[in-house]
Amino acid sequence: MRFSQLVAKLGAVAVDLGSDPDISGVSAIETARPQTMSYIEGDKFAAQIATTAASALVLPQDPSLQAQASERGLAWIADPEPRKVFAQIIALFYQPFRLPAGVHPTAVIDPSVQLGNDVAIGAHVVIAAGVTLGDQVCIHPNVVIYPDVHIGDRTVLHANCTIHERTQIGADCVIHSGAVIGAEGFGFVPTSEGWLKMQQSGYVVLADGVEVGCNSTIDRPALDTTRIGRNTKIDNLVHIAHGCRLGENCILAGQVGLAGAVEVGNRVIMAGQVGIVDHVKIGDGAIASAKAGVHSDVEPGAIVTGVPAIPHKLFVKATAIFNRLPEMYQSLRQIQKQLGIERK
Amino acid sequence: MRFSQLVAKLGAVAVDLGSDPDISGVSAIETARPQTMSYIEGDKFAAQIATTAASALVLPQDPSLQAQASERGLAWIADPEPRKVFAQIIALFYQPFRLPAGVHPTAVIDPSVQLGNDVAIGAHVVIAAGVTLGDQVCIHPNVVIYPDVHIGDRTVLHANCTIHERTQIGADCVIHSGAVIGAEGFGFVPTSEGWLKMQQSGYVVLADGVEVGCNSTIDRPALDTTRIGRNTKIDNLVHIAHGCRLGENCILAGQVGLAGAVEVGNRVIMAGQVGIVDHVKIGDGAIASAKAGVHSDVEPGAIVTGVPAIPHKLFVKATAIFNRLPEMYQSLRQIQKQLGIERK
Amino acid sequence: MRFSQLVAKLGAVAVDLGSDPDISGVSAIETARPQTMSYIEGDKFAAQIATTAASALVLPQDPSLQAQASERGLAWIADPEPRKVFAQIIALFYQPFRLPAGVHPTAVIDPSVQLGNDVAIGAHVVIAAGVTLGDQVCIHPNVVIYPDVHIGDRTVLHANCTIHERTQIGADCVIHSGAVIGAEGFGFVPTSEGWLKMQQSGYVVLADGVEVGCNSTIDRPALDTTRIGRNTKIDNLVHIAHGCRLGENCILAGQVGLAGAVEVGNRVIMAGQVGIVDHVKIGDGAIASAKAGVHSDVEPGAIVTGVPAIPHKLFVKATAIFNRLPEMYQSLRQIQKQLGIERK
Repeated sequence: MRFSQLVAKLGAVAVDLGSDPDISGVSAIETARPQTMSYIEGDKFAAQIATTAASALVLPQDPSLQAQASERGLAWIADPEPRKVFAQIIALFYQPFRLPAGVHPTAVIDPSVQLGNDVAIGAHVVIAAGVTLGDQVCIHPNVVIYPDVHIGDRTVLHANCTIHERTQIGADCVIHSGAVIGAEGFGFVPTSEGWLKMQQSGYVVLADGVEVGCNSTIDRPALDTTRIGRNTKIDNLVHIAHGCRLGENCILAGQVGLAGAVEVGNRVIMAGQVGIVDHVKIGDGAIASAKAGVHSDVEPGAIVTGVPAIPHKLFVKATAIFNRLPEMYQSLRQIQKQLGIERK
Repeated sequence: MRFSQLVAKLGAVAVDLGSDPDISGVSAIETARPQTMSYIEGDKFAAQIATTAASALVLPQDPSLQAQASERGLAWIADPEPRKVFAQIIALFYQPFRLPAGVHPTAVIDPSVQLGNDVAIGAHVVIAAGVTLGDQVCIHPNVVIYPDVHIGDRTVLHANCTIHERTQIGADCVIHSGAVIGAEGFGFVPTSEGWLKMQQSGYVVLADGVEVGCNSTIDRPALDTTRIGRNTKIDNLVHIAHGCRLGENCILAGQVGLAGAVEVGNRVIMAGQVGIVDHVKIGDGAIASAKAGVHSDVEPGAIVTGVPAIPHKLFVKATAIFNRLPEMYQSLRQIQKQLGIERK
Repeated sequence: MRFSQLVAKLGAVAVDLGSDPDISGVSAIETARPQTMSYIEGDKFAAQIATTAASALVLPQDPSLQAQASERGLAWIADPEPRKVFAQIIALFYQPFRLPAGVHPTAVIDPSVQLGNDVAIGAHVVIAAGVTLGDQVCIHPNVVIYPDVHIGDRTVLHANCTIHERTQIGADCVIHSGAVIGAEGFGFVPTSEGWLKMQQSGYVVLADGVEVGCNSTIDRPALDTTRIGRNTKIDNLVHIAHGCRLGENCILAGQVGLAGAVEVGNRVIMAGQVGIVDHVKIGDGAIASAKAGVHSDVEPGAIVTGVPAIPHKLFVKATAIFNRLPEMYQSLRQIQKQLGIERK
């Protein structure tokens, strides 16, 4: 499509149509091809404006970058949120693969299952009794759904994922390949004869707009529910144990692990490989840095780092000095010697 | 069932039948419904006795809590191990979904496979040559079993898990969805031409009563076996490398990782995200705290924490002072100044 | 086969044929059986020479060990790289299970798929439109391949793994059970209305000889590619985020996690549970120790440890003193008291 047509679909703040090039796709700035649109967020890639083969750019609101692009005859669109605009442009050119509506003849679907309109069910999918699927649900091949699950409108289940009994999944969710939702929580009671299983009679609830990454696992509890709030996004290989409650719009990066009954507010961010001890409460808007081990409650808005996690600023200071411990130790010994203090 | 009938099935220490209510299920104390039974373990939830809608409670051996419950006319049962009793009560009302006995027509089973009595095999299961299944084995849909595997009586394999060649699984085991047992260990020999694969000719042995969590992986070794002892319970996303030997009644929480040839005694507990370096030995009853990185052998009964892991008490003390490092550093500089010591 | 025949297949430096025993397999030194060949790498297992039931041994170039073996009448072969030789010997006796060539009738394969010669496709495999498979590709049961994937000659896909759209896999690769290659990267743009998905229009490229462990995940990026270089070996439960570029002959141990756009050179080694922050560059031949959290670029050949990762030698020194922090703190207080310095 012409750049001017593309621009008309967006609400950009500033535009230079240049020669109004034909745009056929998107590309990375370093490896861009002609007739594609690329993206420069900040100063880091500014030098690329002089050399990129892209025909059009998304720019930040920076008159100097815009002037450079115009000088080279490049078309551009500028916005205070260039990344958001570029995401919208990618979506104009690219949508992930979806199955066409219809039920593949090799799928094994219990007669009691209720299907919405325009449902797509792939090969070798297995759906047990009492399941209900909303409209336009898309289930890729080899997915297994246990009994009495509900899946909301437009939700996508990718290949080889497993949804366990009684799980309630909202609308517009994406469950990525290999994820397991609603399996029984890890509940064992120590007794004199060894570990006694506590049956997990609860279930998992995912609100609308939740995404669960590849091979991530969300377990159901002994009683009541494990809940993930609206629009919370969970990356790959994350483990969420039984009875956790997560709020809305949280981000959990890869390999995060939450022990049982953790309570997480809204807009919380957990970076990669964070671990949260059971029953800990994390306030709204808090951030746990990569690899943090959170052993106690975190205040709303706090940023915590380290194992056990402490305020981020304190961690940075203490860590800087950790690296000087050998030197400090020597200094201390020297002082003790000078003062005639006996070493233990 | 009547509360009095329920009590008759258990060996409780103290009971107040109240009005002998009809109990139809279990519920969490905060969200309990009438005609359900709920559970109060300790002081933390004691205040709920005054308000809960549950008709009956499991209580600890605490006369004060018992008196409060009796005053409200609630039925209760008390025990020194209330959690164990509550687990038994849940199991009276709830059992996880099992497939009915029989072989689904879409399962692909090699003619050489030996099936026990009352085996349940779900849709799209694939079982290769030389496999033997004990009585009442339950295999959920889309499981794949490679050749020459043995699976003991009453063991359950959940959907989408994979059992590799020659794996020996005992009786009463549960392998959760997506777990992979017996895949080849990560064995590569550095050579001048790059990494040379060392074929993994051994196999994995799980003793009776072992559980393996969702998407966990237990690899087979180059020679001999990887062994998991009786009643050891493994949570989700755990990695156990080739040649490890685990004892009985161990607990491995989510995302634990064991490198090659780790030896673990009986009743060892590893909290979430623990990592154990190859060839390390962990003594009976030892505990590794969450996120510990264990680089050297651990004595029986020891509790270790940190990376590298040290005795837990020392870790707690050292960590408390870690947080005061900036202050210590300033103090040291002040002393040096006062003593006229030159800073390096 | 006779030991002399076996030796003829290898390029060993020194040999004692002993009684030229018949060798029917390999075994671990501690649990060896007669007529098997076993392996002693270093001093640690030297005592086993006196007692092992093995009929033949691989030894290092150590005249003393060789003399001991000859005295017991054991056949042996010695080499400066005994582990490499033993790997070659295992491969003479053992090869992992492979499916026979042919397409199982339950596989669902789009008519547009191009199959090479002697391809083996197992039961319930699903292959979408536009996929091409090289010669002797082996696809185990219940694998799902999305559209437009290419898989090179002799590559093996194990059961229940999932290959997403447009992924390009080279020759002689192994994708282990449950791995997910090419799923969409975790790309969300913060906006005032919440998280906006950035569609991931790129794809994943695995060069020849790459191995990906069980339940590991490698995501595709918004633009361009995620790339894994030739002969790089990746263990179980590893997460590689969108846009990472890995060089050749790297080793990533279990549960390693790479955030987005990490650049890794050749021959880099990451031990278990290492995490790398987004956009970090790791130089050729660098090593990240177990559980390291790498927040900034690493020089070629460097060894880094800790969170945040620092040079390994410094980490070892500082950690040793970390354990003495309680004692240092007391010393400091004593000095302050002696000097009459007020405590804050």
